[in-house]
Amino acid sequence: MQSREVAIERVDKDARTADRDHVVVEAPLQIRARGTPVATIMRTPGHDLELVRGLLHAEGIAGTPAQLDDDAVEVDVEATAFAGRGLLASAACGVCGRVAIADLELRAKEVTADTSIDHRVLARLPDRLRAAQTVFRETGGLHAAGLFTPAGELIVVREDVGRHNAVDKVIGHALAAGIAPQVLVLSGRGGYELVQKAVMAGVAIVASVSAPSSLAIELAERFGVALAGFVRGDRANIYSHGWRIQ
Amino acid sequence: MQSREVAIERVDKDARTADRDHVVVEAPLQIRARGTPVATIMRTPGHDLELVRGLLHAEGIAGTPAQLDDDAVEVDVEATAFAGRGLLASAACGVCGRVAIADLELRAKEVTADTSIDHRVLARLPDRLRAAQTVFRETGGLHAAGLFTPAGELIVVREDVGRHNAVDKVIGHALAAGIAPQVLVLSGRGGYELVQKAVMAGVAIVASVSAPSSLAIELAERFGVALAGFVRGDRANIYSHGWRIQ
Repeated sequence: MQSREVAIERVDKDARTADRDHVVVEAPLQIRARGTPVATIMRTPGHDLELVRGLLHAEGIAGTPAQLDDDAVEVDVEATAFAGRGLLASAACGVCGRVAIADLELRAKEVTADTSIDHRVLARLPDRLRAAQTVFRETGGLHAAGLFTPAGELIVVREDVGRHNAVDKVIGHALAAGIAPQVLVLSGRGGYELVQKAVMAGVAIVASVSAPSSLAIELAERFGVALAGFVRGDRANIYSHGWRIQ
Repeated sequence: MQSREVAIERVDKDARTADRDHVVVEAPLQIRARGTPVATIMRTPGHDLELVRGLLHAEGIAGTPAQLDDDAVEVDVEATAFAGRGLLASAACGVCGRVAIADLELRAKEVTADTSIDHRVLARLPDRLRAAQTVFRETGGLHAAGLFTPAGELIVVREDVGRHNAVDKVIGHALAAGIAPQVLVLSGRGGYELVQKAVMAGVAIVASVSAPSSLAIELAERFGVALAGFVRGDRANIYSHGWRIQ
């Protein structure tokens, strides 16, 4: 269940009325390694296996997740595989759990494929992402991530209360389906940790409707990723590897 | 330095021009406990001591931070005080580092003050928050949090690439100044962990321009916090403790 109806009071000027509203569901998911709890992450329920699969991939942990119940996923690796994995322990937060930034950069591989996209194709993707956001329309409260082909075909869209979760879910989906992710579109801002997840998955082009951070640009530049921001209508800003956007 | 100028390519229809753009700075800050690194968090530089002070408070760790250099803050407690503190290890991510949700709820106190605000005063706060966001205007890429008095006076606004950091910074500011925070206004969505930080700081009223999550509402309801969303112009949705908004 990705949204829930709740009782609210609606204020409009001096009028105040009891009403109902749909809100996005946020709930804990426990990750266990052969029975041992190793992390609890907050996420919007749904596609939990894709979420954990994407998260494990971003962490470089080889394991297959299995759903135990609505609140827990089991991974078939020893709990020790998670030791020192600040990132997994902190799931939605990206790099912040790391004591050493350098460690993260060591694990990231440069994206060397010569993937590129026509800028007119790219320009249409944010609208198509939004059109596919079913829960957002209902609640107004979700981040989304979408994978597209360089020809502009939609592969998968996922929504989540956490933007990192939405990215983990689409990458987890691609991994499970044996698809190499190439073009990632984000509903929100492009931060460092989202670009890091893209790099780990071999994504060549990351586009968002909003602004990137300085570190996101540095990482994208360093690892061969084209980073576009403010992709709205016919306009876009290209921050790195502009040769991928033709 | 909260923003930086970078070289970009600006695309507008079929035109493509080299240009400059300001982007928000995102950079790591290491937290050390008497010399031992205990966490690295990604944040927008500036007000680092307020950030760490707010973070320690949300964690229930009694310590005074001191700036070592641009990249590090020292806290005068033993590193063992951070043991098992998943939240601090994961800083910006809120609750996600916790293995047990219950543990978090045990530490939160109900807000019992009878603080309330006039709904016409509340309605103006998001615009005032936006007006005070100097870096956002430049980069379009920052979250903001603001503390106000129930009479609508602005106490402090902080911007950060991480919304959790912005909240930690304003609460850290209030703690350092000896001010009891009462009304917290957020530029983005109201998630569980932001409400949790508010509860830990005794904030009675949380308002955002966007949607809250289901868990944010449950926590606000349980701990005596009025939660308002979609506060835009004369309109607002009230999700909990509506008696605080008059």
